[in-house]
Amino acid sequence: MSVTAAKGFTAAGIAAGIKQNGNPDLALVVNTGPRRAAAGVFTSNRVKAAPVLWSQRVLDDGELTAVVLNSGGANACTGPQGFQDTHATAEKVAEVLSAKGPEVGAGEVAVASTGLIGVLLPMDKLLPGVEKAAAELSEHGGEKAAIAIKTTDTVHKTSVVTKDGWTVGGMAKGAGMLAPGLATMLVVLTTDADVDAKGLDSALRGATRVTFDRVDSDGCMSTNDTVLLLASGTSGVSPAQDEFTEAVRAVCDDLARQLIGDAEGASKDIRIEVINAATEDDAVEVGRSIARNNLLKCAIHGEDPNWGRVLSAIGTTSAAFDPDELNVAINGVWVCRNGSVGEDRELVDMRYREVTITADLAAGTESAVIWANDLTADYVHENSAYSS
Amino acid sequence: MSVTAAKGFTAAGIAAGIKQNGNPDLALVVNTGPRRAAAGVFTSNRVKAAPVLWSQRVLDDGELTAVVLNSGGANACTGPQGFQDTHATAEKVAEVLSAKGPEVGAGEVAVASTGLIGVLLPMDKLLPGVEKAAAELSEHGGEKAAIAIKTTDTVHKTSVVTKDGWTVGGMAKGAGMLAPGLATMLVVLTTDADVDAKGLDSALRGATRVTFDRVDSDGCMSTNDTVLLLASGTSGVSPAQDEFTEAVRAVCDDLARQLIGDAEGASKDIRIEVINAATEDDAVEVGRSIARNNLLKCAIHGEDPNWGRVLSAIGTTSAAFDPDELNVAINGVWVCRNGSVGEDRELVDMRYREVTITADLAAGTESAVIWANDLTADYVHENSAYSS
Repeated sequence: MSVTAAKGFTAAGIAAGIKQNGNPDLALVVNTGPRRAAAGVFTSNRVKAAPVLWSQRVLDDGELTAVVLNSGGANACTGPQGFQDTHATAEKVAEVLSAKGPEVGAGEVAVASTGLIGVLLPMDKLLPGVEKAAAELSEHGGEKAAIAIKTTDTVHKTSVVTKDGWTVGGMAKGAGMLAPGLATMLVVLTTDADVDAKGLDSALRGATRVTFDRVDSDGCMSTNDTVLLLASGTSGVSPAQDEFTEAVRAVCDDLARQLIGDAEGASKDIRIEVINAATEDDAVEVGRSIARNNLLKCAIHGEDPNWGRVLSAIGTTSAAFDPDELNVAINGVWVCRNGSVGEDRELVDMRYREVTITADLAAGTESAVIWANDLTADYVHENSAYSS
Repeated sequence: MSVTAAKGFTAAGIAAGIKQNGNPDLALVVNTGPRRAAAGVFTSNRVKAAPVLWSQRVLDDGELTAVVLNSGGANACTGPQGFQDTHATAEKVAEVLSAKGPEVGAGEVAVASTGLIGVLLPMDKLLPGVEKAAAELSEHGGEKAAIAIKTTDTVHKTSVVTKDGWTVGGMAKGAGMLAPGLATMLVVLTTDADVDAKGLDSALRGATRVTFDRVDSDGCMSTNDTVLLLASGTSGVSPAQDEFTEAVRAVCDDLARQLIGDAEGASKDIRIEVINAATEDDAVEVGRSIARNNLLKCAIHGEDPNWGRVLSAIGTTSAAFDPDELNVAINGVWVCRNGSVGEDRELVDMRYREVTITADLAAGTESAVIWANDLTADYVHENSAYSS
């Protein structure tokens, strides 16, 4: 499953000792070909971690042979030494893979890191860990790789879609700092479809735009977000671009939903549907504004259908709407009609983890869905003690 | 003190029964002249409460005789009935004041409301309350008026600046939903200086731009924010515009600081200084982004000098900076230098309520200060049960 569901990939996940608690913390994914096409999307935060700067660069030629990922340290805001460490990690992967098979250069190796910002990685543990991981590479290593990239995730996340003769699979980690422009998420997707770098890039951008980019757990954008898609071409099948993009979207959608479902300290998963917007951009802007309203997030935690806070959030946007025509439903009950009191709020049942807020802008025909979480005392506790 | 520190004003604060707990909930402030000049600034939320729509309209001519304020209900998202209720409230004030003295029209009466959104006001209690308040109007009523506008405020907020023969004083309420474009704040300022409506407007805009508009407790913008400035001219002194603006700014600054100090559930007041920005707008944008980062707000609550979260917040802005030249100090310790690890974070002492974060963009000479609060379990508790 996971990144080894598609043919032409091996993976491993091991404990290198980067995490002080001895949990798995290093994953390696290798494309055994014949194709080595790849595409990636990265955080839009202007403060980018060293591995993001590195991986963006090595993806310039649209090819990757391997991805090495570590948890236990983000290698962000670590200056020139941090970049040297990322480079050394890629060199080490290239060296150990070359020793086992065809020559691999560091420029074919993407690096992804996650964990605390502003701390150098323990390279004396990481580099031997690369050797250990390479020794354990296997066509069945996908689950172990998915486990090794966890930070505060309570479960590992994988997803697979199998089509007629080809497969897209992947793994993701991310539990906090989930916001558009990606989140603190590391995602590696693999496929054995025969798709070139351009086709991969198009599919990946099309898929992330409506999945990972519409997840907004806590409004915070990470320095390390990385989503990679690698194609081995092993199946020999070249799917139509639309069909391929849809398969990638389905895997991304499933993984994104798993990220929200495991967000730090959350007790509710909030599906925000914005409908009848003048433009899709308007719908997304309104969805994000609702997703980021702390007062509303607290209300949802308290199972309080406080639609006034939804209207208050909509009112801060530049989207086209008339305040007197706004309608809001919570779990299907239209508690706000025409910008004022609607159905009885007592009718809203909020006992379950998933809560749907529908915001009807009455201004057009476009729509968008944004996923968010509630704001809880557990979130505060988890994030007030993270680095101490 | 408060709104009756300046000569030419009477005020009252009484319990009308709008709040179910019997606490004071209705305030009346009356300008006894000779001048009735006034200016106001209001929420920039596009979903505006009925009293905001009303008060904006009656201020068109730059004159006000009275302001009536209620807590216990925001009269926001209440449709045509809500607007009629605001109108009826102003009519009632005009009627009872006319019975006591010179004729007053409803168009000389501003209305401000605060409390839960989406609920109609109990007019059967509010209108008799107006009569009761009018009967208690006094030159010593400022404190009682300040007390009557409290919602979740733990203390009432007043401030006075006395200059050479004239005074600016005021009262404020606000404890949550504090964000730029104003917060859930109701503020009434009075002065006995002889200033016309244009001078008041200029002073008020100049003052709120660098005070109330730079308070960002929880990123949420209210539907009801109202800041009014009334001048009686009683002192007969016409101060220079600069001197007058500075006095208004000083009162606003003091009240804004009191709002942050009493924000719902907060345990820390965070002073965010952005320095060496290319423009003041850049400084404000960066300050707000830091102020709104939930992960950082949790870290500050945990007395964790997590500068990586500051950099992560800066990175989401469009301000001019080079990531490798950013410096961040927390309580004077430069924990981040040149975008990377700086002084030892163990040196940062965060035991006290006030925490200063200095973000040096190394891109110019402009600066700005934004005030925020930490994110706490108490905030979550208070706001997850507000309407239930």
